Amino acid sequence: MSTGFFGDIAKIQYEGPDSTNPLAYRFYNPDEMVAGKRMEDHLRFAIAYWHSFAWPGGDPFGGQTFDRPWFPKAGGADTMDLARLKADVAFEMFSALGTPFFCFHDADVRPEGDTLKESIARLDSIGDYFAAKMEETGIRLLWGTANLFSHRRYMAGAATNPDPDVFAYAAATVKSCIDVTRRLGGANYVLWGGREGYETLLNTDLKRERAQAGRFLSMVVEYKHRIGFEGAILIEPKPQEPTKHQYDFDVATVYGFLKEYGLENEVKVNIEQGHAILAGHSFEHELALAASLGIFGSIDMNRNDYQSGWDTDQFPNNVPEMALAFYEVLRAGGFTTGGTNFDAKLRRQSLDPQDLLIAHIGGIDCCARGLKAAARMIEDKALSGPLDERYAGWNEAEAKAMLSGERTLEQISQRVLSSGIEPQPKSGRQEYLENVVNRYV
Amino acid sequence: MSTGFFGDIAKIQYEGPDSTNPLAYRFYNPDEMVAGKRMEDHLRFAIAYWHSFAWPGGDPFGGQTFDRPWFPKAGGADTMDLARLKADVAFEMFSALGTPFFCFHDADVRPEGDTLKESIARLDSIGDYFAAKMEETGIRLLWGTANLFSHRRYMAGAATNPDPDVFAYAAATVKSCIDVTRRLGGANYVLWGGREGYETLLNTDLKRERAQAGRFLSMVVEYKHRIGFEGAILIEPKPQEPTKHQYDFDVATVYGFLKEYGLENEVKVNIEQGHAILAGHSFEHELALAASLGIFGSIDMNRNDYQSGWDTDQFPNNVPEMALAFYEVLRAGGFTTGGTNFDAKLRRQSLDPQDLLIAHIGGIDCCARGLKAAARMIEDKALSGPLDERYAGWNEAEAKAMLSGERTLEQISQRVLSSGIEPQPKSGRQEYLENVVNRYV
Amino acid sequence: MSTGFFGDIAKIQYEGPDSTNPLAYRFYNPDEMVAGKRMEDHLRFAIAYWHSFAWPGGDPFGGQTFDRPWFPKAGGADTMDLARLKADVAFEMFSALGTPFFCFHDADVRPEGDTLKESIARLDSIGDYFAAKMEETGIRLLWGTANLFSHRRYMAGAATNPDPDVFAYAAATVKSCIDVTRRLGGANYVLWGGREGYETLLNTDLKRERAQAGRFLSMVVEYKHRIGFEGAILIEPKPQEPTKHQYDFDVATVYGFLKEYGLENEVKVNIEQGHAILAGHSFEHELALAASLGIFGSIDMNRNDYQSGWDTDQFPNNVPEMALAFYEVLRAGGFTTGGTNFDAKLRRQSLDPQDLLIAHIGGIDCCARGLKAAARMIEDKALSGPLDERYAGWNEAEAKAMLSGERTLEQISQRVLSSGIEPQPKSGRQEYLENVVNRYV
Amino acid sequence: MSTGFFGDIAKIQYEGPDSTNPLAYRFYNPDEMVAGKRMEDHLRFAIAYWHSFAWPGGDPFGGQTFDRPWFPKAGGADTMDLARLKADVAFEMFSALGTPFFCFHDADVRPEGDTLKESIARLDSIGDYFAAKMEETGIRLLWGTANLFSHRRYMAGAATNPDPDVFAYAAATVKSCIDVTRRLGGANYVLWGGREGYETLLNTDLKRERAQAGRFLSMVVEYKHRIGFEGAILIEPKPQEPTKHQYDFDVATVYGFLKEYGLENEVKVNIEQGHAILAGHSFEHELALAASLGIFGSIDMNRNDYQSGWDTDQFPNNVPEMALAFYEVLRAGGFTTGGTNFDAKLRRQSLDPQDLLIAHIGGIDCCARGLKAAARMIEDKALSGPLDERYAGWNEAEAKAMLSGERTLEQISQRVLSSGIEPQPKSGRQEYLENVVNRYV
Ligand SMILES: [Co+2]
Ligand SMILES: [Co+2]
Ligand SMILES: [Co+2]
Ligand SMILES: [Co+2]
Ligand SMILES: [Co+2]
Ligand SMILES: [Co+2]
Ligand SMILES: [Co+2]
Ligand SMILES: [Co+2]
Repeated sequence: MSTGFFGDIAKIQYEGPDSTNPLAYRFYNPDEMVAGKRMEDHLRFAIAYWHSFAWPGGDPFGGQTFDRPWFPKAGGADTMDLARLKADVAFEMFSALGTPFFCFHDADVRPEGDTLKESIARLDSIGDYFAAKMEETGIRLLWGTANLFSHRRYMAGAATNPDPDVFAYAAATVKSCIDVTRRLGGANYVLWGGREGYETLLNTDLKRERAQAGRFLSMVVEYKHRIGFEGAILIEPKPQEPTKHQYDFDVATVYGFLKEYGLENEVKVNIEQGHAILAGHSFEHELALAASLGIFGSIDMNRNDYQSGWDTDQFPNNVPEMALAFYEVLRAGGFTTGGTNFDAKLRRQSLDPQDLLIAHIGGIDCCARGLKAAARMIEDKALSGPLDERYAGWNEAEAKAMLSGERTLEQISQRVLSSGIEPQPKSGRQEYLENVVNRYV
Repeated sequence: MSTGFFGDIAKIQYEGPDSTNPLAYRFYNPDEMVAGKRMEDHLRFAIAYWHSFAWPGGDPFGGQTFDRPWFPKAGGADTMDLARLKADVAFEMFSALGTPFFCFHDADVRPEGDTLKESIARLDSIGDYFAAKMEETGIRLLWGTANLFSHRRYMAGAATNPDPDVFAYAAATVKSCIDVTRRLGGANYVLWGGREGYETLLNTDLKRERAQAGRFLSMVVEYKHRIGFEGAILIEPKPQEPTKHQYDFDVATVYGFLKEYGLENEVKVNIEQGHAILAGHSFEHELALAASLGIFGSIDMNRNDYQSGWDTDQFPNNVPEMALAFYEVLRAGGFTTGGTNFDAKLRRQSLDPQDLLIAHIGGIDCCARGLKAAARMIEDKALSGPLDERYAGWNEAEAKAMLSGERTLEQISQRVLSSGIEPQPKSGRQEYLENVVNRYV
Repeated sequence: MSTGFFGDIAKIQYEGPDSTNPLAYRFYNPDEMVAGKRMEDHLRFAIAYWHSFAWPGGDPFGGQTFDRPWFPKAGGADTMDLARLKADVAFEMFSALGTPFFCFHDADVRPEGDTLKESIARLDSIGDYFAAKMEETGIRLLWGTANLFSHRRYMAGAATNPDPDVFAYAAATVKSCIDVTRRLGGANYVLWGGREGYETLLNTDLKRERAQAGRFLSMVVEYKHRIGFEGAILIEPKPQEPTKHQYDFDVATVYGFLKEYGLENEVKVNIEQGHAILAGHSFEHELALAASLGIFGSIDMNRNDYQSGWDTDQFPNNVPEMALAFYEVLRAGGFTTGGTNFDAKLRRQSLDPQDLLIAHIGGIDCCARGLKAAARMIEDKALSGPLDERYAGWNEAEAKAMLSGERTLEQISQRVLSSGIEPQPKSGRQEYLENVVNRYV
Repeated sequence: MSTGFFGDIAKIQYEGPDSTNPLAYRFYNPDEMVAGKRMEDHLRFAIAYWHSFAWPGGDPFGGQTFDRPWFPKAGGADTMDLARLKADVAFEMFSALGTPFFCFHDADVRPEGDTLKESIARLDSIGDYFAAKMEETGIRLLWGTANLFSHRRYMAGAATNPDPDVFAYAAATVKSCIDVTRRLGGANYVLWGGREGYETLLNTDLKRERAQAGRFLSMVVEYKHRIGFEGAILIEPKPQEPTKHQYDFDVATVYGFLKEYGLENEVKVNIEQGHAILAGHSFEHELALAASLGIFGSIDMNRNDYQSGWDTDQFPNNVPEMALAFYEVLRAGGFTTGGTNFDAKLRRQSLDPQDLLIAHIGGIDCCARGLKAAARMIEDKALSGPLDERYAGWNEAEAKAMLSGERTLEQISQRVLSSGIEPQPKSGRQEYLENVVNRYV
């Protein structure tokens, strides 16, 4: 039985590139085969509960803009009834969009209790409610996570708090969230360390706090194995905001952190396009780097405005950028446990229920279009052909010997001097390759 | 015998804070004891050969502005005679400033030869010339390095070039630079990977290139040990420029790279204030992080303009910033092999010989003033007292047990739930601490 | 009768530079003469009601951190009683700090009514309450302003809204705020167009919206004259946030806007340090530019973190920066109606009542110290002497003739060619001048 | 007779979207009608002489990478023979590409003379050479300009130099460049004030310098009218680089400057995509703003890398961005004297002659594709339809009266209060509109 929130809503259908129906897919065709796999299985789309269902539309200079029947009335309390109504609407949207996955924080799905015990009990109760809906709809959980940043107890960090009681409280909270994630068959569990960082070094023992974070993450990994949770543990890097500096700055930083604590084979990354931009990287850089380091896990597919210095979490809309992103995903072998999560929020002026559908449809179509372009580039060796040619010299025996460690600095120096090597630069052909990409997008 | 370049130059003297003599120190007093050590031994100032003696004053939109007697005349050739004149002037400046160290690239000190062999022979010859001057003046070498970025052969990288011949050529070049650095008693050898990065991922095999860089660095470390070079090997991080992305993005990235190739005990970092800014960090962040990771080596003390998005390499002039930087240096135990190198260039409008002296005097005084403030803050426990108090909870037995790995997630969860822990946030006191710092600067 | 919020609070005293009392001034000594004027009359400090008394400590990723007795309880309503309690505490703080001015928005000081009529009635009522307190304490109003950005009705702008009813509603609101500002003897009235901009050009008629803004501002100016309000009308520029683009981007943009609508002699700017930074300028640039354009009005003295891309509104703490800022203020002739408003908020972890006092004390002292340095630089002609020398050539008759329009391009060309002018560059002496400034700070 | 530089070069042909020939157009079809006009007449492409023919491939960390037969040999002199060879190759490329226009600085096309007189004589001589080639090929001049930033005499500015002799020298130079531009039938004359700004306010009289710039520009305008030059005078804004701050920061700043000196009807802007980005704006913002202010002139179509903080001057390659740009151009009525100049340089690794062709072909095709998408959006009222609807309220009589100045603040306030207006926000539909755009690109 429908809540009626979206009106007379039907499942969004694929209608092909020429459709002008704003409530249809033009490129996303779940069963269409791309590079030997169904599009749905390639893309593994997930909807983020928080932005679409829990966020009221506020920003630092203004309050709630969205009227949602599941929001508490002004002065009214948040209740489990409202939480269930919210879930009803959420699953209606998941079903209408035909996206196979969703993601959530504990704080998105249940009102905070007066005690942690009560909060956990409510989470478990909503977990049951979700389980029934998942059973009914076939929607699955891409990942669960704990909100360790909104409540004032976390204002100075969760795992990295100066107060060990907060560390403990956070640990207990994460345990409860892993438990429910496992119970719901979650494919991953994500940690975004929104407040694991600092506002000022003047009051911060960075070394100690990073050690706390290392221990916390190790405990999570140990727990996962102990309970037999099969999903991947993922860290989502972000350079800053809300903190001035976040310890999980970017993929390279997270990799160093994992190596420091011996967790590089246990934990992967969930890379968000917008966070890459905020860290001074392109999205494809973060993807390629994670893949090369063996820690590529999943993606949050939401762009940042290039002129805004804060996290804008917008729906993706630039197809050439999507093509380069999915090119790296495909080169990394595609998703295993990961997927494409829209950690994207409506602009706060997009008030209507239909805006929620339309925003996701647009993002989904961009991804599908990008994926198809990427797959064709790979099939044609459009980029990999020239790339192999560019590095072909490294296939020579002497080059291999240098790279494998069979040559010393002295030996190489001797060879260069005796043979009078004078390397001649060759064109990098960047503009040619950019034009090639434009053939596909 | 003086070259006369600086006119009637005398050694710069310490005249105290009230001096208005632009050619005197107001704060730098080499023999003054600060925190139990002579200021000179704390700060270990070095002058960078390249900016002050080799750079003609060009920028992307304009050519040479400086007239220097050691620059080749228009259309004329660069010669060893000019290189020796340049060295004469350089050592005159080092002596006048009383700075104990200098730093150089091969390309700064000798004209490029027609062959690598000739280039190396010239480097060796200038090395002899330096050795005599160092003997005579007592000036020492903080570090040597190879310029692997200016010549067109390196346009696509040195160690990370698609052409293995460039890798080899770079290896031979680095060998020659380590050799001369060792011969001159250099305290460190630095690698700045200016072109070890990429312009576009479309033509780049990032994984392979990073592996090349790893092998290259390993060879350097192995060679150092083989020849008994006692200096430290340092990497200087920079996020970008000239490349779109440089592999040694920042301290955290370099740390991950070192861990990946097992070099974290062999290589440290040379942190430049300006590069920290370009990477989205404060200088003190990079210093504190490097210290916490055990890879703090040396600093390049030159600021970046906060409104400019490229490397401005300006002389430091903000004392409160210097105080926070040297506070981290002192907390890290001070320099061992490292020092304070001015990788700073005159503004290209600062045409006069005196500008060279004045710029360095200003930078040196800022550092000295910052060091003294930092030492007093440490002595007074001005920041460390409140810090210890803030983390005091972690001295409790149960907290220690959590951090040391004696507690599991389940145990902590159990304790939190059974004891009903509800952490109460405490003020972070940032503004108070900022005011405290202002008492010292 | 004290509210007790600040405990046993006494008036903050000047104790001189050596004081370590966190609740004393080290530099701000209201009656001390600086450049022929009392410090208090130079600086004209004002406290911002919104950050210190209305802001709950939230950020985009977390909610309220501050517990204040005048905040509504969870689920409770905001009331006029709470508003009066807030006013009591605010005036206690103003009195304790000894700052002569305050500033407010309508939304800071009274709960929103169910209708605009009720909102205005409440504002008028609080206005009466303020009037009594101002009379009693001698505290004055630097400026009043209307909050036209927090309520959802303004989500698409106030004056620039696509809906003319919002324009009208905003106009009525501004009228009420000017009225109360005038009644309280406000020295200025400020307009910050937080939502006068756009999120996307796709739904924006930029030309029309700018015309709406022009008309709105003209109406304000006309009203001011009609009612005889003697204060200045000020626009506060900001480049973005909350909007992607704000029409009042920076000083130069506002100037063009004023010229377009013939308001350049009617409206001045209130320049915020943090907004200057966000717009890609130094604060002193914005000050110098406004002065040169004849539109310098007042300042919001709150810095932006150099590594954060959003408005951090922090208390100033870098004295060298303050010195350069007040140097420009003094060169502009000092404040007339304007003053130094702390549009600065505590870090959200600074929970304690004392933090409010300490933050303001630190900011006030930085300004006082900067002012004194600036005044000495001016007295010594430390910068203006070299400046006059640098431009001395423009005092020659032929140069003056060129500048005044008495020479044509042909005449100048003829003279250059016939006399063979070959200009020789002279040193810009930037480093020397930076060192000079460091003698004063 | 061909120089042979491009080998066996033929005119680039339109082959349609499916072509994979890197030396063919896929979208640019000069005679194809778009929105009632030939594509060539819409786009009015121009090639920039400087990047493609005068730039050696250097960057701040490396020297020349390009080998061009018209570059002086190492140690050799630049000659008029080389300048003519360069012109031969340039016109070969213009002809091959079929682009109707080119643009140049004086410094691009002739070696600097020993005196200004000689420099001008050389410019005139090359002007003759160009005239013959233009006659022969039908290629026209979009704009000429003077290089007032590369020579050291301009290091502290040209019009804004502290030395009036530099102002005079610059004036004489500009006269010579306007003269040759007029002689060659140039459609515009451009001023880019690369050094009209400052490195530090400490040595800068900003007010005086801006007045110098105002007088200089007025002289140019007066001269134009006196000699009957019919082209438009254009200013190209840029926020910074090479200077820390450039007076022509962005479109809004230039507008204010023009208004200040009464030149807003005489001078328009040449907007560069990359400079918009560096100033914190989107390209379409700058275009829309210029159009709304009546100063839209021409465009430099070269993008800036979103992660680089300096001017990267890359060929455009993102079609959705081009579509939004040409949408604004079409809305502004299209070009009159202006056009689409590629102020774009090859990446310095793109060494081959073919890279020059390929880069331009790619950029041209992106523009053509963007133009076609923009024209269809306009034809379909895809964006303008919803826009008109959004602002429809302003068509009501009372709304018009408010905007036209027939209502006072009091009257509006009275109406709002008496009629109890409570505006209800409506969805801004941003995501819907973004999806609509994606139907066209
Ligand atoms: Co985000
Ligand atoms: Co995310
Ligand atoms: Co640097
Ligand atoms: Co450096
Ligand atoms: Co602000
Ligand atoms: Co403000
Ligand atoms: Co440019
Ligand atoms: Co340009």
